[in-house]
Order: sequence, then structure tokens, then C-alpha cells
Amino acid sequence: MRVGIPVEARPAERRVAGLPETVTTLIGAGLTVDVQAGAGRHAHASDAAYRAAGANVIADHPAGQSDVIVSVQPPTPEQAAALREGDITISFLQPSGERELIDVLVANKVTAFSLDLLPRVTRAQSVDALSSQALVAGYRAVMEAASRLPKFLPMFTTAAGTIPPAKVLVLGAGVAGLQAIATARRLGAVVEAYDVRAAAKEEVKSLGARFLELDLETQQGVYAEAQSETFLERQRELIAERVAASDVVISTAAIPGRKAPVLVTNDMLKAMPPGSVVVDLAAESGGNVTASSPGEEIWVGEVLVYGAKNMPSSMPVHASRLYARNVANLLMMMTKDGQVVPDLTDEVLAGCCLTHAGELRRELP
Amino acid sequence: MRVGIPVEARPAERRVAGLPETVTTLIGAGLTVDVQAGAGRHAHASDAAYRAAGANVIADHPAGQSDVIVSVQPPTPEQAAALREGDITISFLQPSGERELIDVLVANKVTAFSLDLLPRVTRAQSVDALSSQALVAGYRAVMEAASRLPKFLPMFTTAAGTIPPAKVLVLGAGVAGLQAIATARRLGAVVEAYDVRAAAKEEVKSLGARFLELDLETQQGVYAEAQSETFLERQRELIAERVAASDVVISTAAIPGRKAPVLVTNDMLKAMPPGSVVVDLAAESGGNVTASSPGEEIWVGEVLVYGAKNMPSSMPVHASRLYARNVANLLMMMTKDGQVVPDLTDEVLAGCCLTHAGELRRELP
Repeated sequence: MRVGIPVEARPAERRVAGLPETVTTLIGAGLTVDVQAGAGRHAHASDAAYRAAGANVIADHPAGQSDVIVSVQPPTPEQAAALREGDITISFLQPSGERELIDVLVANKVTAFSLDLLPRVTRAQSVDALSSQALVAGYRAVMEAASRLPKFLPMFTTAAGTIPPAKVLVLGAGVAGLQAIATARRLGAVVEAYDVRAAAKEEVKSLGARFLELDLETQQGVYAEAQSETFLERQRELIAERVAASDVVISTAAIPGRKAPVLVTNDMLKAMPPGSVVVDLAAESGGNVTASSPGEEIWVGEVLVYGAKNMPSSMPVHASRLYARNVANLLMMMTKDGQVVPDLTDEVLAGCCLTHAGELRRELP
Repeated sequence: MRVGIPVEARPAERRVAGLPETVTTLIGAGLTVDVQAGAGRHAHASDAAYRAAGANVIADHPAGQSDVIVSVQPPTPEQAAALREGDITISFLQPSGERELIDVLVANKVTAFSLDLLPRVTRAQSVDALSSQALVAGYRAVMEAASRLPKFLPMFTTAAGTIPPAKVLVLGAGVAGLQAIATARRLGAVVEAYDVRAAAKEEVKSLGARFLELDLETQQGVYAEAQSETFLERQRELIAERVAASDVVISTAAIPGRKAPVLVTNDMLKAMPPGSVVVDLAAESGGNVTASSPGEEIWVGEVLVYGAKNMPSSMPVHASRLYARNVANLLMMMTKDGQVVPDLTDEVLAGCCLTHAGELRRELP
């Protein structure tokens, strides 16, 4: 069976779903690989490198030629129209807002897997693309902040006196938040972090950061869900106080499939030291910061707010390497003797399968 | 006596030579301080903050009102024309290329100190603005590289496999180079460094980097000076080999008052991994990298070359803080009982005095 790696269909997507190293893996499992010419351009993987790994470089999108299409962004409805019954597509297909594409996938009896829907179980870790890309986003958030900050992150002791370390506040301690904490700590910043999940405390502390706690019982086990009014009021007070004391704020509090909670208001920004920088990784899902807008730099008084837009795509070599491995691992879970035959009774595969054999397997939001 | 802090005269200069904290120091020594409105704008020091520190905020350039003018870039010839006999100017006045300004300073019998000319003696360390600004440049060079690199700097071990650390090569191990090494090491990169001065070896190693050595006796004590042909040939071979193995090259080899040596040619760049990034801190003094141009990003094949342009100015808050302290320390060396009276028999003051009482005290290049 043939696996196809297309040029990404959506503008500004610089990642690619397969690299020469994963082509080698797929070929080793008895698959044939088609790569659309230029697919690895932004990830600095040349057509020649794909060919050297044994891929078949083709001029057009592989839909209709390959049996399995792997991509970062989902195909367009037009590309999906070329898929045949039983063909497979693997991508970050977000069910919300892709109704037209999903209709085509159902009509053509395509089996669509979305890495956005992957169950968070141990067996799926090597396939967990949301986590691997969040790792990139968390690291990049610190680079974006540091390169915009008119100050050092580390402390310096010089002959002309001491420069204190920058104070960094990270909101949300999921994969991206923890990576932002680790990277800011590496650079010598003093880091504080907040998460509604009290369970995040030990991880935050193990990275050398201070964990902020509300002086009331935290609801356990919640995933940034709606909270009581008292809770939200106390949370606002705590965040306002710590934002005011920070040179950098990195917000990462996203709720899968829902609008991100607003945590940082313009009033809070006004209390920050002039020249401070805020990076909102949740800007694309509504924003943790009132002022943020995806891909834009916005000044609120003397504070610069940068709204992240597809952050992993800004580091395409390594973001692609992690994603391509996730995709190859998922493919390996459904490949036997050179045939890709997904077993939809498997918890992981069933969990991330959105359409199959003309059926929509999830309720759309 | 009055010290004046003007708005910087040269475009794109974002630093300022005095901040509220150094205003406090100067006033404590019995001086009066005039600050031109908006002088601290880019360094996020407001007129109100200067006023709160006791400064007198004025609308115009302080030349002709203040007895001492402190600035980052030297005054323009027009501004210098307003200076009176015995007035003092302190700045980064580079004797080369400022003939018109120097003529005015001599004609008006102004005493001009240049921090570019400061003797490198122990007593002058707290005044050493070249070093303090090189610290900023070295740190920023790593931020500029990391934010352009499509890869991580640190190593990552994830469920989808390992990402190796980036390899960073630093050419020149002066203050900027050592800071670049330290910052890249902080971020987890594997770092190698080269300097013609064998004496740099211990400092490089103490930062956790590998020191590259030529397999011939290094000339001792030279300051990146012209070398023998054999030496240069061996150096080229070594650098070519290590550039090819690096994801990031940061070049910092400048020779004060002379054109920087060319160390990295386009042929060398072509052997780097695709997507590699080169930051040339010497771009403004001719460039260590053939392809670099100040302030520009230039692709050579699949390698991105960024030519630094006034790097310290890109981090104006802390660059200004260090510079302002250097300037205040120099002023304190010549201030007694509220009077600024430089003793030109003092080694440090004599060393950095370019014009005095109608005389040019240095040979111009």
C-alpha cells in the first residue's frame, strides 16, 4: 500500500508530516511512499533527500494515488474529493469548523484519523502530536518573549553592578507551560507558574519554579473548567498581583475544543513594568489575554502583547521531526505485512477516528 | 555644575546615557541634571521618573545649558557647535569617520571623552562600556540565532524519540563571544569556540564549551592580528570543518579600529546543515562572514546569515542601565565637591580623552 506526503494545503503551514527518516521507517514496514515535490521545503528536507530514503517524488497531491495521506493540516474539501473509498487520512483535523470537509470524507467513505482526538492513554504517548507540538510551542514562547524583551533574562554581576534576573510568570502548566517554565529557568529567569489543577504543583516545583496557590481549596481534577464565582474572583486577584510583578507573562491555558479562559485583562497589564512582554499561546482559541490577537504585536501602554499563531510552524525542522515520528508511530499501529488495516476496536485508533465507512463517529460541536 | 542627558541624535539608537537611578547618583555627588524630554523613551524611563529622581526635564538638547553632555552616540557637529569652552562630552566617539565633529570640538575647546578609547586597566573596569555593551551583544546574538533557527537548542527526550542538542560554534572569545558561549550553554546547546588567543582556552572551557586548537603553535598574546600564511591556511581549514558541523555560528572577532577578519566564506556555509543560522556580530566593522550585511538577513543556499547592527540598542533597558552606570562611574572619577574637573594626568581619563583645550590628543586613523 502507498502512503502519500503532500505539500501542506493551508497557507503559512511550514511543517511536513513525513521526513526522510520516517520514510525509511515506513518502507521498512513494507509500505511504498509518495512525496509531493517540495513537501519538505520549509523543514529543509529536499526532494533529493526523500528520494535517497527510497520515496517516490511526484508532482501532484497524492490524493487518488496513495492509499494513506498524512499531513499536518487536514486536506481541503477539494483534495478530499479525490480520495477513494477506504482511503485513509491522518492530520490535525479539528471537528469544529470543518463541516464541509467532513461531509466529503463521509460521502467518499474515507477513514479519517485526527491527532486532535487522540486518547490520552499511555499506549498513545508515542503518537501524541498535541503534546509534541505543545513542547515546541512552550519553548518558542520563551524565545519570542526573550527576543522582544528590552532586558536580560539571566542575572548578571558586572563591574558596573548587578542586573537582577527577569521575572517570568507562566499561566497554565500543561505540556507547553511546563516547557516554557523549563526554558525560562534554563535562561536564568525567576519563574512562577499558576494552574487551576493543584496536581501541577509538583511538576512546576521540580522545574525550579514557584507554584502559585489560591488561599481556598482548589477543585481537584478539573481541566481548566468553569469554576465558582468566589474561585474566579480569588484567581483574578492572584493573577493581577503576580502579573504586576512580572517582566514576562506566558499564557498557555487552553481548553480543548472550547474558548480559552480570559486570565489577563488590560488593567492588569498596566501595572507591569514598562517594556514587559506578554506571549499568549492561547491567542488562536480566543486568548488568555484580552488584548491578544493571533500573529500580532499589540502595545497596551508600555507592555507588548504578542499573540501566538501556529507557533510550532515557526520551528519547522524539529516540529516536523516530532510530528512525523508521531504519524509514523500511528501508522505502525495499524500496519501489518505492508497493509494498513486499522483495527477500530483498538482504543487508540477508535479514539482518534472521526469518519469511517461513510459514518461520522463523533458528535460535531 | 550641570550634566545633560539628551535624546540620542543618531537614528535607531534606542539606548540612553543616563537613567533615573544614575541621576540619583549624580545629584548625590552635588551635580544638577538636565534631561531632554523623551530621552529615556525607548529604555522605558519616563520624564516623570527622571523628575522623581530630581532631574530637570528640558525641551531642547542640553548643549549650551549643561556643562557636561553624556550620550551613547556622539553629538552631531551641529549639536557640538553649541558647546562652550571647557564643556565636556562623554560618548562612544569613534575617532575614525568623525573628522567634522572633532574639528568642532577642537575649535570650541571642548573636552571630549570617548568610551571607545578607555584603557583596559583594572581601575577602569567599572567604566568599561565596550565590555558592558559586548555582554549585551553576546547574549542577544544567541537570542537572534535561536529565534531564527528551525530547531531546538536543547536536547529533548520525548515519547517519540530524542532530539539532539544544537551545535553552536562561537568565533572569537572576547566579552561578546564568552557571553554567547554562556548563553548557548544555558539553553543546552553543545558549544565549540575558537580564538586566535590561546589564553582564551581556560575561560572557554570553564563555560563548558570545547576550545578549538590549531595543530601548530599559536602566536601568544596577539589580539586577532595578522598572522603568517601557514597559520591562516590552517585556521581556514579548521573553521571550515567546524562550520560544516554546526547548526549555529556566532562570529564576534573584531579588531578595535580595524576591519574585522573574514573567517567564514560562502563555500563554508554551503557545507552547513540546511536551515542553519549564522549571526555576525562583526558585520558593522566589515564582517567575519563574507555574506553578512549590517541589519540584514541574507540566505546563502539554505543557510540564513544575520548581520548584527547595533545589537545593544535592541535591548535598550538593560543596555542603557549598564551604560548609564559606566558613564556615572566615569563622571564620579572626575567630580569633586559638585565640580567636574577631569585630571588629565590620571591614566584612565587621559587614555579616553580625545580633545581638550583646543588640542587633539590622539592621532586620527
